[in-house]
Amino acid sequence: MSIAFNQDNLKGFVEKKDFAKILPQIQKAHELLESKSGPGKEFLGWMDLPSRISDGFIHDLQQLAKEIQESSDALISIGVGGSYLGIRSTVEFVGGKEKLPIYYAGHNISADYLYNLLESLKDKRVTVVMISKSGTTTEPAIAFRVVKEFLQKKYKELELKKRILCVSDGKKGALKRIVDKMGYRSFVIPDDVGGRFSVLTPVGLVPLAMAGVDIKGMVEGARKAQAEYSKIDFGKNAAYQYAAARYLLYKKGKMIEVLSSFYPNMFYIAEWWKQLFGESEGKNGKGIFPASLILSTDLHSMGQLMQDGQRNLFETFLMIDKAEHQVLIPKEEEDLDGFNCVAGKDLDFVNKQAYRATAMAHREGRVPNMTISVCQADSFHAGQLYYFFEKAVAVSGYLLGVNPFDQPGVEAYKTKMFKLLGKS
Amino acid sequence: MSIAFNQDNLKGFVEKKDFAKILPQIQKAHELLESKSGPGKEFLGWMDLPSRISDGFIHDLQQLAKEIQESSDALISIGVGGSYLGIRSTVEFVGGKEKLPIYYAGHNISADYLYNLLESLKDKRVTVVMISKSGTTTEPAIAFRVVKEFLQKKYKELELKKRILCVSDGKKGALKRIVDKMGYRSFVIPDDVGGRFSVLTPVGLVPLAMAGVDIKGMVEGARKAQAEYSKIDFGKNAAYQYAAARYLLYKKGKMIEVLSSFYPNMFYIAEWWKQLFGESEGKNGKGIFPASLILSTDLHSMGQLMQDGQRNLFETFLMIDKAEHQVLIPKEEEDLDGFNCVAGKDLDFVNKQAYRATAMAHREGRVPNMTISVCQADSFHAGQLYYFFEKAVAVSGYLLGVNPFDQPGVEAYKTKMFKLLGKS
Repeated sequence: MSIAFNQDNLKGFVEKKDFAKILPQIQKAHELLESKSGPGKEFLGWMDLPSRISDGFIHDLQQLAKEIQESSDALISIGVGGSYLGIRSTVEFVGGKEKLPIYYAGHNISADYLYNLLESLKDKRVTVVMISKSGTTTEPAIAFRVVKEFLQKKYKELELKKRILCVSDGKKGALKRIVDKMGYRSFVIPDDVGGRFSVLTPVGLVPLAMAGVDIKGMVEGARKAQAEYSKIDFGKNAAYQYAAARYLLYKKGKMIEVLSSFYPNMFYIAEWWKQLFGESEGKNGKGIFPASLILSTDLHSMGQLMQDGQRNLFETFLMIDKAEHQVLIPKEEEDLDGFNCVAGKDLDFVNKQAYRATAMAHREGRVPNMTISVCQADSFHAGQLYYFFEKAVAVSGYLLGVNPFDQPGVEAYKTKMFKLLGKS
Repeated sequence: MSIAFNQDNLKGFVEKKDFAKILPQIQKAHELLESKSGPGKEFLGWMDLPSRISDGFIHDLQQLAKEIQESSDALISIGVGGSYLGIRSTVEFVGGKEKLPIYYAGHNISADYLYNLLESLKDKRVTVVMISKSGTTTEPAIAFRVVKEFLQKKYKELELKKRILCVSDGKKGALKRIVDKMGYRSFVIPDDVGGRFSVLTPVGLVPLAMAGVDIKGMVEGARKAQAEYSKIDFGKNAAYQYAAARYLLYKKGKMIEVLSSFYPNMFYIAEWWKQLFGESEGKNGKGIFPASLILSTDLHSMGQLMQDGQRNLFETFLMIDKAEHQVLIPKEEEDLDGFNCVAGKDLDFVNKQAYRATAMAHREGRVPNMTISVCQADSFHAGQLYYFFEKAVAVSGYLLGVNPFDQPGVEAYKTKMFKLLGKS
């Protein structure tokens, strides 16, 4: 049930003695987190979040979800960055099994995208979740205006009010003021959890519950991870091992981490991972560049660079132990393509061999690599994986000497854009 | 109608005199290509491919497409790497307007993916395009076996034969032997065009035509680009300017190129671009690492790293001048979110301002950046863009001192996998 972390293919690049040397730094990072006394200490709410989520809250959300699912054909989730990726990564990871189809808006400013989305929903019964701490972030704020107008054409005031849920700051900000004025149902984003760590707050839980994803399982997975990755014992803490390995690789000149998965349903997990690590570490001229590959497609192209390009990168494989379905490879009378050698075998067997071959080949090509595996693709393991990476990036950021919980650089384009838009 | 290339934001990083210095190298690369005498000279078929495609061939494909569209509800395109990405990037770029919905297989080995795909198509009339030069590439070969079995349950032999089209080598290989034995309709991949350059060969044209994409427009766009980017005059050749700029940035220590777009329909164009540049340049310990961002989602996360992380990267924006649809931003009585400043404006106006703000902010954050713009998202401009990048990577590879047309590193994992699978 735990996440498995395999670092055999770091041999020759990072050795046991290297880990031993930085143990004191890891312990220091651990203590800073536990005592809430390090940089960004006011944003550590994610640490014990899983255990603080009450079963009553989950139950209430699931009750509301039943009501919404009965009255709706589609859910539009409006949010950007961390208020978008964690929701989508969960939905796709568990395999598109939502009871209420979920669509996204406010994560881009494309006119064609929003036009086509609303056009496709014009004859459907629609409920909206608007997610924004401030309510003044351009992308979701503008999308919310357009989507509200779309709903106003469909519904009278009272009905409209039932079809808008908001997730916002509990006290201040534009969205909170809109909620107070209009009387929309609303949920609070805690002040001590940053956007990129917010998937287990109402930011993620509200839309996921409405869509019918098993949020109870997701929170349970995160609780298990919280217990497991709060252990100081390095040998038993896979999140710390992962953080330490990538820091050591960085110190040895590896500037890019490639997260590679052989499962298309992990694509958005990788996108979520990029936003978490990129925003937490990429500051003060420091940080590993997080990139991702979708295998085996990319083995037939980027595989060339992985094997033989600049040796400034390392690779982290993200694997799923057990596929949900079996697909047996048929035997053919005449073995023209030569694949009767795997006839009768399951496709997942071949996928695992492709992974083994790739990990070996890349190591021989001098790309150090490690593997993070979860048992299966369900909401429990999504929750577990989110917490694993959150804990890892916190330690990793402290090792790097940055504040992993701020994002001063994100303001630069916002300020410029507000000026260009004439916004005061 | 031409691609616009803006390099104003390279100032301070790469200057006119830097370009002047490498002009002789660019001329040399141009001559090697034109005289077909440089490394990889046996794979230059893509260079005059657009002008060599006959209008008769396009007409025949479109006639066949009518027949297939009438007899089918769904098209499965089986292929991996370059036999997948160019097809998908075109379909998504032009906005999912295909007459016959297209689904993909053979680009991964996920059992759950293939199971769910076939489950969703079990009550549909299905036609398949199988694309593989050799027919022995694991992913498409195995998918082809499974999909054939799926079709055999639906159709008798004669009908089945009509529903399978193959794109393969013209003389040798397993797929060619299968075609000869079974009598499937087939199309030939030219020997002198590598997989990653193959989007304008039958690899791309056959499935795109069957899906109802305007391949005539696509070829015309590529023809225009062929004429334009065969000019030696550096000041008039945007493909050479782009190649030169990225080479100069690489020489100044920029190891990562981030292709950023504000349009979600360009996501797969970026994936296609990554396979083209990664596989062409990533060899002999050299090459820029190609990565992509989808904005404005990533501005709220990776934006931090772009603004303030390691300064080892540069950025290329990919823009579309004109959106297809208009979405006006509604005015609100009480301006709680402060966006009445853009009320009545089109969403695309805001998107363009977000781009301008980002390009400025990143330049100030010491990320040199440039912009490639096409007029609109149609098949003409897809063809133009493909050829632009193909010509650019050829010159870029020669500047770098590698053979941009081989891929020796891709064999490493294949050899290992065949061994693990017990394949002779």
